[in-house]
Amino acid sequence: MARAAYACAMRTILPALSALLLATTATAAVQPDKVATMRDAALKDDIAYDITEGLTTEVGQRLAGTEAEARARVWAARTLKSLGFANVRTETFDMPVWVRGAETAEVTAPFAQKLVLTALGNSGATPAAGIDAEVIGFASLDELRAAPAAQVANKIVFVTHDMKANQDGSGYGYFGAVRRNGPSVASAKGAAAILIKSIGTDHHRVPHTGVQNWTDGVKPIPAAALSVPDAEQLSRILSRGQKVTIHLTLTPRDTGIHQSGNVIAEVPGRDPRAPIILIGGHLDSWDLGTGAIDDAAGLAITTAAARRFLATGAKPLRTIRLVWFGAEEVGGFGGEAYAKAHANEKHELVAEADFGGDRVWRMQATLAPAAKATSDQLMELLAPLGVTPGRGAAHGGTDVEPTANAQGTAIVDLGQDGTRYFDLHHTADDTFDKIEKPQMQQAVAAWTAMLGVVANTETPLAPGAAAKPQ
Amino acid sequence: MARAAYACAMRTILPALSALLLATTATAAVQPDKVATMRDAALKDDIAYDITEGLTTEVGQRLAGTEAEARARVWAARTLKSLGFANVRTETFDMPVWVRGAETAEVTAPFAQKLVLTALGNSGATPAAGIDAEVIGFASLDELRAAPAAQVANKIVFVTHDMKANQDGSGYGYFGAVRRNGPSVASAKGAAAILIKSIGTDHHRVPHTGVQNWTDGVKPIPAAALSVPDAEQLSRILSRGQKVTIHLTLTPRDTGIHQSGNVIAEVPGRDPRAPIILIGGHLDSWDLGTGAIDDAAGLAITTAAARRFLATGAKPLRTIRLVWFGAEEVGGFGGEAYAKAHANEKHELVAEADFGGDRVWRMQATLAPAAKATSDQLMELLAPLGVTPGRGAAHGGTDVEPTANAQGTAIVDLGQDGTRYFDLHHTADDTFDKIEKPQMQQAVAAWTAMLGVVANTETPLAPGAAAKPQ
Repeated sequence: MARAAYACAMRTILPALSALLLATTATAAVQPDKVATMRDAALKDDIAYDITEGLTTEVGQRLAGTEAEARARVWAARTLKSLGFANVRTETFDMPVWVRGAETAEVTAPFAQKLVLTALGNSGATPAAGIDAEVIGFASLDELRAAPAAQVANKIVFVTHDMKANQDGSGYGYFGAVRRNGPSVASAKGAAAILIKSIGTDHHRVPHTGVQNWTDGVKPIPAAALSVPDAEQLSRILSRGQKVTIHLTLTPRDTGIHQSGNVIAEVPGRDPRAPIILIGGHLDSWDLGTGAIDDAAGLAITTAAARRFLATGAKPLRTIRLVWFGAEEVGGFGGEAYAKAHANEKHELVAEADFGGDRVWRMQATLAPAAKATSDQLMELLAPLGVTPGRGAAHGGTDVEPTANAQGTAIVDLGQDGTRYFDLHHTADDTFDKIEKPQMQQAVAAWTAMLGVVANTETPLAPGAAAKPQ
Repeated sequence: MARAAYACAMRTILPALSALLLATTATAAVQPDKVATMRDAALKDDIAYDITEGLTTEVGQRLAGTEAEARARVWAARTLKSLGFANVRTETFDMPVWVRGAETAEVTAPFAQKLVLTALGNSGATPAAGIDAEVIGFASLDELRAAPAAQVANKIVFVTHDMKANQDGSGYGYFGAVRRNGPSVASAKGAAAILIKSIGTDHHRVPHTGVQNWTDGVKPIPAAALSVPDAEQLSRILSRGQKVTIHLTLTPRDTGIHQSGNVIAEVPGRDPRAPIILIGGHLDSWDLGTGAIDDAAGLAITTAAARRFLATGAKPLRTIRLVWFGAEEVGGFGGEAYAKAHANEKHELVAEADFGGDRVWRMQATLAPAAKATSDQLMELLAPLGVTPGRGAAHGGTDVEPTANAQGTAIVDLGQDGTRYFDLHHTADDTFDKIEKPQMQQAVAAWTAMLGVVANTETPLAPGAAAKPQ
């Protein structure tokens, strides 16, 4: 009840008093000067850059459930131990594994030419010799939805869209529906196959893959993404008004159930009974690039930030648990497995880095009302890095959401600049050369500041926890 | 002799008088106001953009000597006729044709992963099942040249380099030696194959192909370019100091002698006896992209500029001959065939556009000394487009050089901005979406101004011609 009264006071107090409140309520645990020192040291720390270089070079692509991801787990555990983390262990789980096969396409009429594409996750297959069919084009998913089945049946559906790059990555949710839902809509109308314009914002011949799941009762059909230039080319060819035919070969296949796993490491807290601060990213990647921005960078940033505590010997109040999740890309299996395996451990706050290696520009948090002072303190420590407060709620990420949802934890989103993220996301171009060290170091500094605050405060942060009597 | 005396006077006269001289000597033929009007109209002309769109969409890639290039010639002749050009015809010639096969590579140890590469022109082949060999890396072609054969024999040679983007495209000549000469050097030392870092300045997984020719007596070996990110990856892998092995499959083949051709069109001059102004670009492209910047753009710019005369009815004094050359990429066969077929026709000046679709930033000319006033007049008409005079000699280009060399013609180089040219050159990324219309329109305006001057002056321009008595 004491906490609830405090929360009520916080909601009505003048903002000008918040700095004073910080000084009187939080400094017992959090020492802003020490956090600022740790934060600034992170700006000169190469560890995140080196982790990204190591994982992408010494493992490369690491599709979930494959031998490559297993090698990545060995690499991960060895690396986390060598960095000094405690309680490093791997927790495995089983999952279905789909793998890419041949993937080629050629316009056969009216203007013969090859197109560059890549299968979407869980795509059906053509026969090895491919299929030939007429193409029918749609300017949007809505247009496909509105089309009569008779118009679509036995044709290769092509759906384009108009996604543009935005700093906050918005656009992926909306335009991504073309990938997530387009294949099932096309299949339900009897299409022979579906080609989409890549859910991406670049202009390179590197198509963007990504997962899609068939809705109940719908037959899997071949489903692939054309690179953005190839999609624009197909739109131009269709614009001539002549009948367009394509020869399409896609031979992906399901390989059954295989093992994936989460690799876990910790910075033990001074109070072992305090609820856990859960952070991390995902270890698996799509198979086309080396998963540098998605998500070696996220692992590296969160790991480097947690390691600041080990480097300085400044043991946090709460245990920081770092997880390199498996099998995120193909359906979030790692996050689900973690939430299930650790349902009986209390988590205070979750945060995930899964949006590249560029700088943090925005902080958004979902915290207990009583934690306003903590949030303000965090913003004060982030502001010198150019971070601004956002007005929305925090969402976490695929890996930490199952835990957040199950336990009503606090969530902090350190939003990274996504302007170029969807130029690279899920393509062969997601490689180490895309990492800009100063941006990555700024992100590590932001994460360090965040951990310095949330792992050291005694203030309950979780909205679920705050509602309960203490 | 009168001309020679005039030239002598021009070399000694004060620069301040040159405008007056222009007014008294050149306006009989060249009317700067009319040229400026044509030039400015070109800034609003969509024809070059539309030609580029049409050729890249309706034909796509057009490797020399293939059925695709033959389709391109049909497209070219139809288009040039429909634009109103006179004397449109195709002149064919025979040439050897090499075509790409399978091309895959995989690091097998110490860090198993695929690499993206593409065969270089005239590459030898591996068996269909590929080869396995140890990799030996070199930081430069000089380092490879210095290596003992015993160190290189039976290995896969990897040569990297440090090319950077420059506005004038310099770097391609120097670093391009890795591609042009590296394969023969490696083969002479007994290498099993050679992989080079792409001769390019981008960071995408789209390798740069390009021609290379085996020196006499050297056995063709598999020769390919890794994309820039893959080459950097292989350098990082080699930097670990462990033995690196690669499984390489390249199955290109020679297909024998096939037909290519030049497509020729004209703007007839008022004086049919006056020597010809020869302009153009090349119709063939490499097979990976759709040849938008290399060289649909060059065809389009020169064609649109020549067409300004047809559009305005302003017949030039000298005939402008526009050639869309065949088979440039694979060895300059079209330019050689043209020079041979037209050796008995007198050419005054040659100019070629084969450096993308971006703006003209520099003019350099090789002219008879007596043509200084013409050159000054040209600069005055180019300056409003932001073009500056260069200090070097003009070189023309692969297609027009055989004619220039045989006849001692004048040459004008309208240097286009090459800052992003080698990001795209000879890759799958050379597609229509890379064309920026305002830049292309500026280039057409520069070419229009140039033609307006050189096709209308009575002044002999060719260094060879100026030396002869008139």
